[in-house]
Amino acid sequence: MDAATPTLFDLEPETTVAKKKTKKKLKKKASKGKRAARAKPKAAPAAKPRRGSDADSMASRQREISVSEFFAKNRHLLGFDSPLKALLTAVKEAVDNSLDACEEAGILPEISVEIEQTGAKTFRMAVEDNGPGIVDTQIGKIFGKLLYGSKFHKLSQSRGQQGIGISAAGMYGQLTTGKPVRILSRTGPRRDAHEFLLTVDTAKNKPDIHDSKLTKWEKKRGTRVEIEMEARYQKGQRSVDMYLKQTAIANPHLTLHYADPGGEAVTYERTTKEKPKQPEEIKPHPHGVELGRLIGMLKDTTCRSLSGFLREEFSRVGAKVVKDVIKGAGKGLTEKSYPSRIAREEAAALHNAIQETKISAPSTACIAPIGEDLILKGLKKELEADFYIASTRPAAVYRGNPFQIEVGIAYGKPGGVGLELEEGTGRIKKKKKKADPKTAHEELVGEPDDPVRVLRFANRVPLLYQQSACAITKGVVQTNWKGYGLQQPRGGLPVAPMAILVHIASVWVPFTSESKEAIASYPEILKEIKLGLQECGRKLGTYIRKGKRLKREYDKRSYIEMYIPHIGIALQEILDLSDPQRNKTVNTLEDVLHRSRKF
Amino acid sequence: MDAATPTLFDLEPETTVAKKKTKKKLKKKASKGKRAARAKPKAAPAAKPRRGSDADSMASRQREISVSEFFAKNRHLLGFDSPLKALLTAVKEAVDNSLDACEEAGILPEISVEIEQTGAKTFRMAVEDNGPGIVDTQIGKIFGKLLYGSKFHKLSQSRGQQGIGISAAGMYGQLTTGKPVRILSRTGPRRDAHEFLLTVDTAKNKPDIHDSKLTKWEKKRGTRVEIEMEARYQKGQRSVDMYLKQTAIANPHLTLHYADPGGEAVTYERTTKEKPKQPEEIKPHPHGVELGRLIGMLKDTTCRSLSGFLREEFSRVGAKVVKDVIKGAGKGLTEKSYPSRIAREEAAALHNAIQETKISAPSTACIAPIGEDLILKGLKKELEADFYIASTRPAAVYRGNPFQIEVGIAYGKPGGVGLELEEGTGRIKKKKKKADPKTAHEELVGEPDDPVRVLRFANRVPLLYQQSACAITKGVVQTNWKGYGLQQPRGGLPVAPMAILVHIASVWVPFTSESKEAIASYPEILKEIKLGLQECGRKLGTYIRKGKRLKREYDKRSYIEMYIPHIGIALQEILDLSDPQRNKTVNTLEDVLHRSRKF
Repeated sequence: MDAATPTLFDLEPETTVAKKKTKKKLKKKASKGKRAARAKPKAAPAAKPRRGSDADSMASRQREISVSEFFAKNRHLLGFDSPLKALLTAVKEAVDNSLDACEEAGILPEISVEIEQTGAKTFRMAVEDNGPGIVDTQIGKIFGKLLYGSKFHKLSQSRGQQGIGISAAGMYGQLTTGKPVRILSRTGPRRDAHEFLLTVDTAKNKPDIHDSKLTKWEKKRGTRVEIEMEARYQKGQRSVDMYLKQTAIANPHLTLHYADPGGEAVTYERTTKEKPKQPEEIKPHPHGVELGRLIGMLKDTTCRSLSGFLREEFSRVGAKVVKDVIKGAGKGLTEKSYPSRIAREEAAALHNAIQETKISAPSTACIAPIGEDLILKGLKKELEADFYIASTRPAAVYRGNPFQIEVGIAYGKPGGVGLELEEGTGRIKKKKKKADPKTAHEELVGEPDDPVRVLRFANRVPLLYQQSACAITKGVVQTNWKGYGLQQPRGGLPVAPMAILVHIASVWVPFTSESKEAIASYPEILKEIKLGLQECGRKLGTYIRKGKRLKREYDKRSYIEMYIPHIGIALQEILDLSDPQRNKTVNTLEDVLHRSRKF
Repeated sequence: MDAATPTLFDLEPETTVAKKKTKKKLKKKASKGKRAARAKPKAAPAAKPRRGSDADSMASRQREISVSEFFAKNRHLLGFDSPLKALLTAVKEAVDNSLDACEEAGILPEISVEIEQTGAKTFRMAVEDNGPGIVDTQIGKIFGKLLYGSKFHKLSQSRGQQGIGISAAGMYGQLTTGKPVRILSRTGPRRDAHEFLLTVDTAKNKPDIHDSKLTKWEKKRGTRVEIEMEARYQKGQRSVDMYLKQTAIANPHLTLHYADPGGEAVTYERTTKEKPKQPEEIKPHPHGVELGRLIGMLKDTTCRSLSGFLREEFSRVGAKVVKDVIKGAGKGLTEKSYPSRIAREEAAALHNAIQETKISAPSTACIAPIGEDLILKGLKKELEADFYIASTRPAAVYRGNPFQIEVGIAYGKPGGVGLELEEGTGRIKKKKKKADPKTAHEELVGEPDDPVRVLRFANRVPLLYQQSACAITKGVVQTNWKGYGLQQPRGGLPVAPMAILVHIASVWVPFTSESKEAIASYPEILKEIKLGLQECGRKLGTYIRKGKRLKREYDKRSYIEMYIPHIGIALQEILDLSDPQRNKTVNTLEDVLHRSRKF
């Protein structure tokens, strides 16, 4: 890469001539030609905008666009396109941040969500956690600047990754109600709490702090965010209520309090006190690094040799890999080559050599799956069903990023009548299934004639919108559920009273938009999702087939049982039995029926 | 809004204590309490990152994320998610920019696109225009900085709007091949051409200029961009070829030369020398301005009275509207109120009053539709079909933004046999339809059993990806085509040999993602799309019904004609006619048949 040769801006006065001239003047002076123009001093670039423009007048209108302006105008990209969705997105961003902070600080999270109606079309949402709190000098930037955060530059599993969400939520509140965000935060029992009122200065993408003061707060440690916004509240499949319920399922270590606008309060108690394994931060895997990035890394590294660079900046690179890569690259590169002096051509050769060298798969210590046990616990606690199964796949890799897929299934609608095999006697008994009307079960496991419900999670965050665009939905649709005893229309979700949970954990979840609502269909991810679904599907198939066999056997036996009393009467007549003898024979026959017909 | 009260950063030394302390140290010193901590000087905020973090160590890891870094990592958001799509996106961004520049400068555009394979997986694309050129001091920023441009801050119809596209294309090239973008530009015959080689400095989101020099160029005026990138080239529905073909349809004033990687060259000649009406820049309509934006505008305006502010900063506000709004707002606001001193509560009242005041719809001078004539011309030139119809709807408004919908339909596949009514004689004749194998017709009007092809355009730019997420597709699906004589499966596109073109022109097209591939389904937009489709649909229905009636009538007459010779023979026998007499009678009968059976 050529280092900065002096640019035109320094060298060539003649390139900036005639900035202020209008076309007319240019026409008049055409005969005088270039000399006259050159004699002019450098003109200011800020000519007035004009119609029928030339390059100069166009140049005067070029401006930088602040990222806040951009997202304010395009707020639908961030999930703030309708009042209904905006409320959910805001709550989601705040809760995600709270959970991330608690996990990073090693605190068992306890979070309160309150939603209150403040006007005909406005609501105030408040999210409060027991997390580590935020240092006062950072509060402004975290809540008042887009693209600011700690999670973007590291490869480590977290809910947030972009540094946009919560500032965007505040910006939406300020756009629709004009009111600032209120933040209360305390970093420890021996420190005071801070209270901030702030908005985003959209033109500059920086916080505009209206008020900040020390204050008393009974909480020893934690953060509280309040945002008032134009919103609409509604229960249902894509509501705040549903998001929180699903969050509780995917985060069994969380205790969650929720007060809805109607004044009803609900608490989801944690089912485990075990904190999730803290995911480690990893270095990029060599196979996932593009040429451009490699060139950038070579330039920025502090390592003073190529071999050091390869070992230090990447994961899974040892002495043998270093040797193989450098040998493969050729071009005169050695272990001692000075990284920042490696030119583009050599870097390209290096990049090729890396792709062709066998390197072990990335470490998966950076991923914290929920685990089969906790998925089952979560499903059983929140979804009433007849049959539960869960499966955690081994970790895999896409574009150099490790990820892991987990699947859980809850099948069968309680409230009906089921069949059960009585151990010992071999009898099949009818059994009324329990059904607790208080549970929100209906919302999660659908009716028998409905398509299955798909609960999608990415790094423990429920995804409620853009279902059809998501790799998870595609995985479910592309799995052959007929093989497991379910109905499935062509190209559609299977039809059954069933909920399917799919969780992807990764250091970098590839979302299809900034609003993080759907996962991009990388082939590796789709494959793992399908494998996970098949694992669970096979066990579900066994259960369903067993149920069907029980039903068939029950029908056959009922049919035979119907005739046993008549046989009893016939025997009584032929053998001249007494009534008790006849009854005993009938009972024996029934017993033999159930014992002899193996199930 | 409370003006800047002094913030904590100025006032409170105790809030920044103990930054560097680890948890252990804090525990040890717990007995000494706060005083000891307070005695410490202000600590630097850059503590080392640590595991099991507290607020301080977390703070040290918070960083700003450059918008280039963000989009480099999330390049699928910009349409660079696969090598196939990347090539199309890059060409599209460059051509869009060229067309915008030519239109703004009032130049009839002539654009060349060249694609050349440079390696197993790499291609170089070059786009050259006869536009106004770019002033040298701007070239760096336009091609080397994301979110920089002239179109974002004004309300005026243009293809580009974000200031991201072409820089992102260059960034993708640099990421995948490490090579800089090459730009050649000349702003007039009496100026020298400039040549630049540059990349994007992603960490800082600014151009990194490798080389820039004055150079000779035979072209008098124009710009040429060359980007080398990892790509894949393929013909088909979503190819560069298809994009260019559709661009020619929607831009009949454009002459477009295209050289594909196989070395084949094609030129789409312009069908009109009339330049599109130059869309005017407008001010925002009061009904489309949100409260937060209103507050910002009140703060930023140079107007010194509320009435002046309302008239100057908005469109469609006259004396009566000013009076009504201020009266409606109350709160002691008068025409003389000083805008920047209006507090939030008063601004909210003002905002409410604006919403409730009747204000005429925005001017539509800012929109330049293609027009029915030119749509028909474009369709006829590029798509061979039997029936063409086009319709331009009147302008409408969503969220304060004017927009206009245009629909065109090309129906019927040539190459088959059609029926035609002969004027005068009343006879129906079979007619072989023309079919020119050379046209790329097949690609645009599908087979009779295929769903119709939907050609989507936004501000004259063809949209090739994310069809199902687009409001245009939804509009087509939600229209009842059975009423117009077509088959249509439930919830699907109609099935017919037909192409439907829909164009939305607007000062701000609401795309569902930065890659600008689909239009968000605002109810107002969807409604206009459906109305446009219905207008064309009704005329199509008439044509199709007429065709069906012709067919039925033709069948009936053929049936009767079959018997006429036999009647002739019978009459000959009964009336003892000579052969000529018999033939004459038969001819008369046939003539009567066609004349008497009205069609």
